[in-house]
Amino acid sequence: MTLDAGALDTLFREARTHNGWLDQPVTDDDLRAIFDLMKYGPTSANCSPARFVFVRSAEAKEKLKPALSAGNTAKTMAAPVTAIVAYDPKFYDHLPKLFPHADARAWFVSSEALAQETAFRNGTLQGGYFILAARALGIDTGPMSGFDKAKVDEAFFAESGWKSNFLVNLGYGDATSLFARSPRFEFAEACAIV
Amino acid sequence: MTLDAGALDTLFREARTHNGWLDQPVTDDDLRAIFDLMKYGPTSANCSPARFVFVRSAEAKEKLKPALSAGNTAKTMAAPVTAIVAYDPKFYDHLPKLFPHADARAWFVSSEALAQETAFRNGTLQGGYFILAARALGIDTGPMSGFDKAKVDEAFFAESGWKSNFLVNLGYGDATSLFARSPRFEFAEACAIV
Repeated sequence: MTLDAGALDTLFREARTHNGWLDQPVTDDDLRAIFDLMKYGPTSANCSPARFVFVRSAEAKEKLKPALSAGNTAKTMAAPVTAIVAYDPKFYDHLPKLFPHADARAWFVSSEALAQETAFRNGTLQGGYFILAARALGIDTGPMSGFDKAKVDEAFFAESGWKSNFLVNLGYGDATSLFARSPRFEFAEACAIV
Repeated sequence: MTLDAGALDTLFREARTHNGWLDQPVTDDDLRAIFDLMKYGPTSANCSPARFVFVRSAEAKEKLKPALSAGNTAKTMAAPVTAIVAYDPKFYDHLPKLFPHADARAWFVSSEALAQETAFRNGTLQGGYFILAARALGIDTGPMSGFDKAKVDEAFFAESGWKSNFLVNLGYGDATSLFARSPRFEFAEACAIV
C-alpha cells in the first residue's frame, strides 16, 4: 500500500511548476478525472467548500486576462486550461447532504468568522489535493497567487457569490522553459519531534 | 508518467480519515520521509511557510490534551503521532534563501495582510501535500480542526511565534473503527468549464 519511487517522483520529487506549455489539449474527461480524485481528499466535516471554474475558451481567457499580474499573463493566456480555484462562502448550506450525521450547518451559520476560516482552509486543502491529482494523471500544473481577486470575482462569480482563492494553469509542460528548482528547508529547519 | 490504479486508490479513492489506531509506531525516519516529499510541493515564491511539530511523547501529548475538543481527545491521545501543522507568520525572513531570484521578502514586509494571507494559504497547501505524502508512504492520517488554537500556540509556540493551523493524527489505521464514507459532490455541482 505504498507508492513506488516513480509515483513519488511524479507527484513530488520530479514534479515542477510549469511556465511553458506544449500544444496538447486538456479535455473535459481530464478535468472530470482530476475532480473525481480530488473530491475524496479529507475536509473538516466533509464540508468540501472548493469550487473550480476551468477557463479554456478564448472568450473566457479574455475575461480573465485583465485580472492577471504582468508576470502571469503570457503563460496563463497560453495554457490549455486555467483553473480558478475558488470556494463557496455559503458551503454550509450543503452540509445536510455532505455530512448527514449531525446538524453541522448550525456550527457555521452561527459564526461568520468560523465559516470564513473553514471555507478558506478547506478550500485551500482541496486546492492542494487538486494539484497532486492533476500530477497523478500526468497533467502538469502552474499554480499562481498573482492576480486581482476582486476582478476575478466580479467577472466570474457575480451570481454565485463564490470567492477566488488561487489559479492553476493545466497542461503538458514544456521542460525547456523550466526555471532551476529553488532550495527547500532541511527537516530540522521546519520540524520538531517532541 | 501517470499513477496506476492502486496508487490512486491509496492516495484518494480508498484512503480514509482514521479514528482508531493499530499498535504500530511511526518512526523518526517515517516523519522525515513524509517531510522530504511534502517539501517539494509548490508554494507561492517557494515561501514554504508550513512548520510541523510531531507530538509523540507522553509528556507532549499531555501538553496537547487540554487544547483538544471532546470528540477529538481519545483518538488523538491514542494516535502514535499527532502532527501540529503550523505556519511561521515571519516566513518572509527566509525568502532570501528560498527564493534567491528576487527580493521577495520586501513584498511581504510591506503588507501585513498579504503576509498573513500568504502564510495561511500556502501553509495550508503544504498541509494538504503532507496528508497525501503520508498516504503515499502507507501511513494513515486523521486531520482535525477541532482544537483550541490559542492554547496550542501558548503551549508549543510561545518562543517561535508559529501559529497552529490544524492537527493530523498519524499511524496505521484500525479499519474496524471507520465510519461510512460521506457523500461527495458531482462534478457539475462544484465545477464549470467555460
